[in-house]
Amino acid sequence: MLVLSTTTEIKQSCQSLIDTYPDIEFQFYENIEQAMEELPEAEVLVTYGEDLNEEIIAKATKLKWIMVISAGLEEMPLAAISERNILVTNARGIHKVQMAEYAIGMLLQVYRNTKVVIENQQQHHWDRNIPVDEISRKTMLVVGAGAIGQELARLAKAFRMKTIGVSKSGAQKEHFDQVHTMDELSGILPEVDFVISILPSTDETIDYYQAEHFSQMKKTAVFLNMGRGNAVKSEILIDALDQKELAHVVLDVFEQEPLPKNHPLWGHPNVTLTPHISSRTPYYIPRAIEIFEQNFKKYMLGETNYINKIDLKRGY
Amino acid sequence: MLVLSTTTEIKQSCQSLIDTYPDIEFQFYENIEQAMEELPEAEVLVTYGEDLNEEIIAKATKLKWIMVISAGLEEMPLAAISERNILVTNARGIHKVQMAEYAIGMLLQVYRNTKVVIENQQQHHWDRNIPVDEISRKTMLVVGAGAIGQELARLAKAFRMKTIGVSKSGAQKEHFDQVHTMDELSGILPEVDFVISILPSTDETIDYYQAEHFSQMKKTAVFLNMGRGNAVKSEILIDALDQKELAHVVLDVFEQEPLPKNHPLWGHPNVTLTPHISSRTPYYIPRAIEIFEQNFKKYMLGETNYINKIDLKRGY
Repeated sequence: MLVLSTTTEIKQSCQSLIDTYPDIEFQFYENIEQAMEELPEAEVLVTYGEDLNEEIIAKATKLKWIMVISAGLEEMPLAAISERNILVTNARGIHKVQMAEYAIGMLLQVYRNTKVVIENQQQHHWDRNIPVDEISRKTMLVVGAGAIGQELARLAKAFRMKTIGVSKSGAQKEHFDQVHTMDELSGILPEVDFVISILPSTDETIDYYQAEHFSQMKKTAVFLNMGRGNAVKSEILIDALDQKELAHVVLDVFEQEPLPKNHPLWGHPNVTLTPHISSRTPYYIPRAIEIFEQNFKKYMLGETNYINKIDLKRGY
Repeated sequence: MLVLSTTTEIKQSCQSLIDTYPDIEFQFYENIEQAMEELPEAEVLVTYGEDLNEEIIAKATKLKWIMVISAGLEEMPLAAISERNILVTNARGIHKVQMAEYAIGMLLQVYRNTKVVIENQQQHHWDRNIPVDEISRKTMLVVGAGAIGQELARLAKAFRMKTIGVSKSGAQKEHFDQVHTMDELSGILPEVDFVISILPSTDETIDYYQAEHFSQMKKTAVFLNMGRGNAVKSEILIDALDQKELAHVVLDVFEQEPLPKNHPLWGHPNVTLTPHISSRTPYYIPRAIEIFEQNFKKYMLGETNYINKIDLKRGY
């Protein structure tokens, strides 16, 4: 049995797995191209999920399980995978700590005017009259109330915030004062201070935020997107900011990544922009491999209660 | 009975107090100089605590109570006040929300390299290879485990940190895994990631941090001072940073404020510097006046269980 990885980054973290299963062959390659020759023999494929297509799936004739060591599945040929009945698991949930920290850090940065404070330090300029506000006791709306959203809501509660969630089911969840369904967004927006978007990319989430949503927000509201960039068109964001419908936009994800150098978002005074780094952490690979290890044990024992098994029809 | 304020900033927030006690005369002046003529008649004096001296106390012959609407008392003529047996209360505790937010925000900024991220945005430069780390699960030492320190420890616990406190008594406190006395600092330092100083200025806290303390810290440690600047000499900080004994220093308070324009701290690459703004908040005055109101009610009823009554011998 061959376990094939299209990244070598995980090799060190897989050592205990390799030691535990001496009869299993593990192969680590730099990328899919280098792995191609071994692909027809692979039963398990470990990938970041951006290097597969239908042709590759067709060549992997023995493939039974794809472990995606990220959360995004939008570049996966899900139909072809589903047809072959291949198991897909991902690393959902290992993003929650760092992404919740990112959101809290960014809100504090915006509310405490940290950009101006940093600029003043560069100028050796002592100015105590910088407007500041507190994030405590504000109202946070988390759109996409999954594992990451729930971790963020948990922290928001520590900051004594009111927390409102939006999810597909609208089912109540811990750390949220209320949870609503996707079509109830408009009714909630007028009362919230922070709108945090953690929507994955699915048919229902593309262009989810429309111009009218921003006109319903408080003029002091902050919109932060760390889900997927195609949830909102940048023109809508820029128009809303220019019309002062909200105060600030924080973006970690974009319709096009990398964001083109001449894109108007870069220089907008009320935009804070980070290059899709909210999920970065030094603990990413160890955490992903921990899930892989646990699932591998289940796989070898013939158990089926996998962690983060993907419903290929729903796409998450 | 005359209540005299040496600031007009609080007038609006005092309206309900004025309405509740129509027989009491309230006077608000821009500063102590303008208030001087009324001073001999004042029974209650409301002040930020930086405008009093022995001479002024001597002139305020009817004075029975000084409400200090800040936390720092180092510029108060405490001996002269004590001799006259004048009650002193302050606004201790109203700084805790914003100062805890400041500390968390600054640690996230340092750990997520926000300065570089902001600079990259200015340059329209997409760079995902910025080192980031998580503050979660780290160990925080709070030196000065009072109201602010406890609020910070509460948030740190939400970030799943280990929390250690240092206080005069070393008595156990909620939200701290351990609390130690002031002379036990050295033994704790090697294991902590964040050292947060919230020490007030007293005889025992001036020059509290010595060069040897920094050499005991982790090389990755962050030292943050939002208490008083005289707790550590800037030369000691700069030397420790230059010798790579710790990774970063965040300072909101300084031996001399404003920090002189040519001071080497301004431009040090491993220093983040803010102009004594950690306690700033739009809710400062309403919160201070809330304490004043509650104490005023007690004062009028002849009760003695004042909120934040200062022990004039200890100075806090």
